Amino acid sequence: MIRVTVWNEFKHEQTHEQVRNVYPDGIHRVIADGLIEQEPAFAVRTATLPEPEHGLTEDVLNETDVLIWWGHMAHDDVNDDIVNRVHERVLNGMGLIVLHSGHYSKIFKKLMGTGCGLKWREAHEKERIWTVDPSHPIAQGVPEYFELKPEEMYGEHFDIPAPDELIFVSWFEGGEVFRSGCTFRRGQGKIFYFRPGHETYPTYYHPIIRRVIANGVKWAAPSGAGVPFRGNHQPLEPIG
Amino acid sequence: MIRVTVWNEFKHEQTHEQVRNVYPDGIHRVIADGLIEQEPAFAVRTATLPEPEHGLTEDVLNETDVLIWWGHMAHDDVNDDIVNRVHERVLNGMGLIVLHSGHYSKIFKKLMGTGCGLKWREAHEKERIWTVDPSHPIAQGVPEYFELKPEEMYGEHFDIPAPDELIFVSWFEGGEVFRSGCTFRRGQGKIFYFRPGHETYPTYYHPIIRRVIANGVKWAAPSGAGVPFRGNHQPLEPIG
Amino acid sequence: MIRVTVWNEFKHEQTHEQVRNVYPDGIHRVIADGLIEQEPAFAVRTATLPEPEHGLTEDVLNETDVLIWWGHMAHDDVNDDIVNRVHERVLNGMGLIVLHSGHYSKIFKKLMGTGCGLKWREAHEKERIWTVDPSHPIAQGVPEYFELKPEEMYGEHFDIPAPDELIFVSWFEGGEVFRSGCTFRRGQGKIFYFRPGHETYPTYYHPIIRRVIANGVKWAAPSGAGVPFRGNHQPLEPIG
Amino acid sequence: MIRVTVWNEFKHEQTHEQVRNVYPDGIHRVIADGLIEQEPAFAVRTATLPEPEHGLTEDVLNETDVLIWWGHMAHDDVNDDIVNRVHERVLNGMGLIVLHSGHYSKIFKKLMGTGCGLKWREAHEKERIWTVDPSHPIAQGVPEYFELKPEEMYGEHFDIPAPDELIFVSWFEGGEVFRSGCTFRRGQGKIFYFRPGHETYPTYYHPIIRRVIANGVKWAAPSGAGVPFRGNHQPLEPIG
Repeated sequence: MIRVTVWNEFKHEQTHEQVRNVYPDGIHRVIADGLIEQEPAFAVRTATLPEPEHGLTEDVLNETDVLIWWGHMAHDDVNDDIVNRVHERVLNGMGLIVLHSGHYSKIFKKLMGTGCGLKWREAHEKERIWTVDPSHPIAQGVPEYFELKPEEMYGEHFDIPAPDELIFVSWFEGGEVFRSGCTFRRGQGKIFYFRPGHETYPTYYHPIIRRVIANGVKWAAPSGAGVPFRGNHQPLEPIG
Repeated sequence: MIRVTVWNEFKHEQTHEQVRNVYPDGIHRVIADGLIEQEPAFAVRTATLPEPEHGLTEDVLNETDVLIWWGHMAHDDVNDDIVNRVHERVLNGMGLIVLHSGHYSKIFKKLMGTGCGLKWREAHEKERIWTVDPSHPIAQGVPEYFELKPEEMYGEHFDIPAPDELIFVSWFEGGEVFRSGCTFRRGQGKIFYFRPGHETYPTYYHPIIRRVIANGVKWAAPSGAGVPFRGNHQPLEPIG
Repeated sequence: MIRVTVWNEFKHEQTHEQVRNVYPDGIHRVIADGLIEQEPAFAVRTATLPEPEHGLTEDVLNETDVLIWWGHMAHDDVNDDIVNRVHERVLNGMGLIVLHSGHYSKIFKKLMGTGCGLKWREAHEKERIWTVDPSHPIAQGVPEYFELKPEEMYGEHFDIPAPDELIFVSWFEGGEVFRSGCTFRRGQGKIFYFRPGHETYPTYYHPIIRRVIANGVKWAAPSGAGVPFRGNHQPLEPIG
Repeated sequence: MIRVTVWNEFKHEQTHEQVRNVYPDGIHRVIADGLIEQEPAFAVRTATLPEPEHGLTEDVLNETDVLIWWGHMAHDDVNDDIVNRVHERVLNGMGLIVLHSGHYSKIFKKLMGTGCGLKWREAHEKERIWTVDPSHPIAQGVPEYFELKPEEMYGEHFDIPAPDELIFVSWFEGGEVFRSGCTFRRGQGKIFYFRPGHETYPTYYHPIIRRVIANGVKWAAPSGAGVPFRGNHQPLEPIG
């Protein structure tokens, strides 16, 4: 059983009626529903910025196999201690799925080491997402391409390290491309960045989007060695 | 249920008493036993060079999710048509695990596009295998390092494309290193090369070796999209 | 001084008036002119399919640092011995730049190990090429994006191994994306695949296209170690 | 002309006689001498921790194409503002070469996003460095392998992201292996980590070590596009 925590800053839903209309109980609730719909065996909980410790206590993180992150307007309000705690957990094996505007979150920038900037435009345009690594488990059950209309545009250059694996590339009506599905490994943790999900659109109700996120959870769940690999330390004696 | 076919050229066992002593029913039999021991749910069969079509008929390959390949002295005796058939199956999604001296097999060279040469020495020396990608599913349950003594030495430069993922690196008593656990994706197929397994040593009885190969099977089993991605063909009309 | 050989099958120019109008002396001639324009110090020669040994004799290849390949309708007419000779030279350090429809050439497929298929459409549409790896030497002097209109469309899934480096991604008016600038290392040789260049369009007169190909030549020129690394062989004695 | 700044914390040389005996004017001075010996056209300067702003003022960094970093016992004494300034410069295209114990520097950890831990042992043992990517420009003129005796041991698991390119792998007498030559791209900057160089050994006088560092400088020098790629900003209007 994979234990998932869906984190959302949960601000747009309070302040923008347009967002509340699409996600009345919050984006996190719809993402969580999608996971349960796709994989009933997942144990899913949610956490949000306004909760104590942003809902990401030591206990919660210790019981989380994969953390999903949605943030946008309140990146700066996330406490650095919590960011460091999440960072440490990822290096020790917790999976992390960063969605959409989470590209600019503290935790993603800290794990990438780069600026993580990109281009964007809100013009209600069509996005066509192409699968470029069809053998990847995250692409399981995903067609050659699928469309979202409308979505926000994100364009290159996306200032990330070269991803370990590039799974999806987006085409936008207005003339841009974007590396929309990227994996990274950091420490013992696996990270999946997935682009779609502007807060004013019903993207997280889309069955293929739900499929991709559920696939991402299964891929990112810890599968590594049982022994600790971390730290700077003196080793065994030389071989005799 | 994952369907595995273990292929062995099955020649050393006929002609070298030393090999027959270690693998009386053939290397393939011991590899197959190890898979069943590790994962009773695997459906495992074997195939060998002397069989008609080397045991790799269209039917067998169509019912194979992952093919394991052990060959050494008879690479040239493998029929090119069978090599092409296996190649085609890999590009269409069948997993392939190439063991030890299989680095010089026709199928591995055809998939890599390089010479696949390396250094070697039979000196009954110690091999220490280090895990350098502890988060990889193939490293699941594998310690930081483990030892084989004796083993044949394989040394760099190993003339392969840069692997998509480097999981294990070997240290040899005599002074060499080797990229011993490497993954590659070709078409919709996943390939895992794993170094150990000289025919005169009981390597395939070793529990960690068995664990790694079983992990490799699970990793390499097809997980891709359900739609065909192959071929050179015209697409849909332009978007209206 | 880098020695470049530009190879062209040189067939369309003989048989299609439309192509002859754009490239009256052959595509190879215009590519060669572009190289000299960009880098007067390059030593550039050409070779074509109808010449003896397709112009790729042992002597010519031994004096070639980087080979540029354009082929389309006559891939099957290239002699396998010449393909093997070029392959061997690449593994020994010669650079190779494969242009446009060369994706389906024998030499590219042999080096990649995959089917190398893709989607295509001739609809006189606009191509916008985005730079996704701005720090790469092949992107030197190349803007964030540039446009070709018209060009032929090439679309994903492009059946290649994951490139070592992804430098350019194309956007097409009709709704597709394509990994248009990819590098691969094989043996001691460097390979650059660059998408644009349909035979009926004046693509190889375009200053940025010329810049990219010249950058590619500089990147692909041999720079490796002076000692031989090839072959399967017994090594030194163990360390005393 | 490539402008290089060699940075050294310059502490061991003040406090440890053994280090002062090997590097009487500081490690930075010997690294700088090696660069000038190998490439007289380099413009080389040095900077050290005790200088104002650690010698890394805005002016110095703006006039630096490649920064070389050696630090060990005083990582924590490096001011965070200077670390951020160097980070920003790397993302904007300055090359960075991190040597030996610099793996634990603030700047390297910030760029990697991981813990950067490793194993180590001071046992005066032999290190044998193998070239695993002979076609890489950093391996130019470097033999198949070369030896340092004695050196400090560094062992896996080295907690870094999978390097973009793996060029050298070390073998140690006591039984460990290490990914000793690794490249990374971050933003528009190129980073090369190179393992050897314990302060009590004359490693930076070794001609092959000097060759590798000089090659690294040439490789890491900015070569990207002339236009700015950074930041999070809105793009052009959609294509008409």
